[in-house]
Amino acid sequence: MTKTKNILFIMADQLRWDYLSCYGHPYLKTPNIDKLAKEGLLFESAFVQSPICGPSRASFYTGRTVFSHGATLNQVPLPIGELTIGDYLRKDNIKTAVVGKTHMKPDKDGMERLGLTKETDIGMIVSEPGFDPYERDDGLHPNNWVKNYSTVLTYNKWLNSLGYKGDNPWETWANSAEGPNGDLLSGWKLRNSNKQARIQEEHSETAYMTNRAIDFMNENKDDQWMLHLSFIKPHWPYIAPSPYHNMYSPNQFYEVVREDKENQIQHEVYRAFTNAQVSKVFSKREVREAVITGYMGLIKQIDDNLGRLFEFMKQNKFFQNTMIIFTSDHGDYLGDHWLGEKELFHEQSVRVPLIIYDPSGNADSTRGQREKKLVESIDLLPTFLEALNSSTSTHRLEGRSLLPLIKGNQINDWRKSVFSEIDYGLHSARDELELGPHEARAFMIRTEKWKYIYYKGFSPQLFNLEKDPNEFEDLGQNQNYEKIRTELKDLLLKRLINRKNLLTVDEKFVLKGQDVESEGGVMIGVW
Amino acid sequence: MTKTKNILFIMADQLRWDYLSCYGHPYLKTPNIDKLAKEGLLFESAFVQSPICGPSRASFYTGRTVFSHGATLNQVPLPIGELTIGDYLRKDNIKTAVVGKTHMKPDKDGMERLGLTKETDIGMIVSEPGFDPYERDDGLHPNNWVKNYSTVLTYNKWLNSLGYKGDNPWETWANSAEGPNGDLLSGWKLRNSNKQARIQEEHSETAYMTNRAIDFMNENKDDQWMLHLSFIKPHWPYIAPSPYHNMYSPNQFYEVVREDKENQIQHEVYRAFTNAQVSKVFSKREVREAVITGYMGLIKQIDDNLGRLFEFMKQNKFFQNTMIIFTSDHGDYLGDHWLGEKELFHEQSVRVPLIIYDPSGNADSTRGQREKKLVESIDLLPTFLEALNSSTSTHRLEGRSLLPLIKGNQINDWRKSVFSEIDYGLHSARDELELGPHEARAFMIRTEKWKYIYYKGFSPQLFNLEKDPNEFEDLGQNQNYEKIRTELKDLLLKRLINRKNLLTVDEKFVLKGQDVESEGGVMIGVW
Repeated sequence: MTKTKNILFIMADQLRWDYLSCYGHPYLKTPNIDKLAKEGLLFESAFVQSPICGPSRASFYTGRTVFSHGATLNQVPLPIGELTIGDYLRKDNIKTAVVGKTHMKPDKDGMERLGLTKETDIGMIVSEPGFDPYERDDGLHPNNWVKNYSTVLTYNKWLNSLGYKGDNPWETWANSAEGPNGDLLSGWKLRNSNKQARIQEEHSETAYMTNRAIDFMNENKDDQWMLHLSFIKPHWPYIAPSPYHNMYSPNQFYEVVREDKENQIQHEVYRAFTNAQVSKVFSKREVREAVITGYMGLIKQIDDNLGRLFEFMKQNKFFQNTMIIFTSDHGDYLGDHWLGEKELFHEQSVRVPLIIYDPSGNADSTRGQREKKLVESIDLLPTFLEALNSSTSTHRLEGRSLLPLIKGNQINDWRKSVFSEIDYGLHSARDELELGPHEARAFMIRTEKWKYIYYKGFSPQLFNLEKDPNEFEDLGQNQNYEKIRTELKDLLLKRLINRKNLLTVDEKFVLKGQDVESEGGVMIGVW
Repeated sequence: MTKTKNILFIMADQLRWDYLSCYGHPYLKTPNIDKLAKEGLLFESAFVQSPICGPSRASFYTGRTVFSHGATLNQVPLPIGELTIGDYLRKDNIKTAVVGKTHMKPDKDGMERLGLTKETDIGMIVSEPGFDPYERDDGLHPNNWVKNYSTVLTYNKWLNSLGYKGDNPWETWANSAEGPNGDLLSGWKLRNSNKQARIQEEHSETAYMTNRAIDFMNENKDDQWMLHLSFIKPHWPYIAPSPYHNMYSPNQFYEVVREDKENQIQHEVYRAFTNAQVSKVFSKREVREAVITGYMGLIKQIDDNLGRLFEFMKQNKFFQNTMIIFTSDHGDYLGDHWLGEKELFHEQSVRVPLIIYDPSGNADSTRGQREKKLVESIDLLPTFLEALNSSTSTHRLEGRSLLPLIKGNQINDWRKSVFSEIDYGLHSARDELELGPHEARAFMIRTEKWKYIYYKGFSPQLFNLEKDPNEFEDLGQNQNYEKIRTELKDLLLKRLINRKNLLTVDEKFVLKGQDVESEGGVMIGVW
């Protein structure tokens, strides 16, 4: 029977769970991703540990909640003591390359304290962090940042070599459009989201990263590997090359999901989020119309490129021994609930697509099925380790392998709730609410029926997802729901207490108990 | 005005809060410690983060709860990413030496992953961990361990040089008595606790460590330093040299604090603790009578040696510029509540003495006073940093500087509850209850009036400390106290959520907000 040798871990950035045809989008057809779902298992209830890029990714990579790993905000390095996928798999001599975005930064203070520099092998891996470097590109390169880079971005070098001129063709060609008089229309500005990017599709970031994934596979046919192909899109700048820039029109969009009564909700944190510039802007019809056009085009483009990649993999027999995961780091409000961007816990933000294709015969019984059980992004790393039959200790991991679900095993003790959290310390809402740097925290517990949000320093929110799947009616202050709120708060407490904090020894140490001492000759309580 | 230049941080091991005359012991007179209290401030309600040696010390040293630093058990290394007092003060060029016990171990896996070895300067400091090595001696040296040491223990070398023969005079002389026929009576056995150790007092561990503290001060008169003088006693082996071995007799003991009804308590975890061998043994009169004799003698001996040390410090003008702290890492049941050792949360176990002498004029208004406010061991490191006017960032620290209390400031927002926790994974109770390695956890919230204990997987305990200061009546299941239990559980949740997990950036980063991105040219939500 075929076994899993390699892992291709594909992530799209800011892709909502419901913007794929296999997740129900009526107009955005994604046949290649749908086909993966038909050959694998589609998870209908997959949630991220935090609906913010950096913290969410750090949880995917460490297999630990944000509460545990501590990279609570974007731009915040994962502490040097945390282990990532790369650290785990490297022990089994598996290459762990990244093509695209991780949003991770090196823990410079931690490295300096321990005398590590990027120039050493260990220092380089730690600063990646954890992965083997291959084609790391975090995908946001505004001009002022590019000026400060010590080396030219590989993607920019490539664009230059193709004749796209300038210091930062990432911005001026790949993420800009052109006006009628040849003037540059920046992709940063949402009004340009339905215009055509000044680049040929095959030179865009999505195509380039797909090429690089193919390069990696070609170069490593004989090795065992885990490749993290991490697309930068459909994250903003929301601007797509032809023919994707005008493939969709507003009559093919989802209706906006919002009600006037939401705007009257008195919850302070929600209100502060709706007051943010990005929320005000996304609440306008013309903004949605421009942005969603670009957003859907970028997703369609990813699907086409994945078709190209999967075809290559089939021709080169990678499909027989490679587990393929497709997911996203969080969603995008796109004006729903009077909000833009992500960060809060509505389904649009915290729920993601998750498809796992397992090449092994074990998975045959679930191919093409849809799994309703609640899963979390921290479940992926344990899944990888089990699929690869890794010998690495998993005592730090807080998720649960999905392999039993993929095998179609009967499982009676699966989790009944998922957990997510945010630190909105870098959001304008923290300023508006005049909170200190450690105060802007909120925690979600979501069961099949309920969504409970505990805000540090504020009253909670509660939604009945069965009766109110659109989360319009906040029951957080309703006296009739005191009991259910208490129960859900209890689940939150239990979840926090379950944090794995015993990092430096594994379970075997604990199970050995006091034998370590008594074998040494220590006597406790001997008369 | 005099300012604090140095810090002398004295810790006794396993010293109960109430076994000093300044804390009310009627027969055990400790005039030197009492005098320190008269010249400083005595804290009446000081609690440790965990009533277990290693975890408790790790919290003293890191300024972080066990929940956060993760060294939840004895013999478990602090993760390499955690910073200790040494790491904080070294940045200000302060020497940070240890004389005696820390119970800390190097994080070998963490070091190996980062390519660090003990042989390098950084590796040595990390493996200490954090402190500069001076006279580190963890104070438990059974023969089978000593055989495996790569170098001879310095204290053993010294004893050999004085004529105490053998491979391990720590055990055979300093921690053994002699029978009538010259046979060796091991101090490990509790029955020998009221016998005379085979060593002259001035050669005992307590005297030796005091000498080494004096050596350190003599050698470092011109430098700024933090010396952690960490006595190994009155921790077991409970055996004292003459004249301390028979200074106290049972009519000078506290009455045993226990009631038959406690023994009928149906709380599973408490019952499993009372079933441990050490608890059964300490519940016997003859064991208490032997052990407490030795225990009180060892405490008296520490007081006398501190008298000698303080006299040296006065003569050498160290008293003018050295902040002196006296405390303990946890208590000792000594048969109270039908228990031996420590680990659970009764006052005998979790409450400690804490005296702080601050040489600066700022502290004059509180000299000789007794402070009732609830304080925790994680408050010490912030106190040291403030006293030394350190510039180090305190964003990882979870405690609060005690300096405002020492200065006698009016403080209206002081904490209303203290927090402590245990992982009883290495205790026989875990076996008896058939718990997994991550399941043996419990958490205490104690206010002035209430003590609430949340057990993972078991019902809670609740005590009314006003009406029932001896904690005989467990209200954990009593229906009438549902509301107060809910309130206290809420405090626990709040406390857990307050964990400082943002390690790699400080508050300034958060307060800068999205400026980092917008200055770079990133535009979010711009039409």
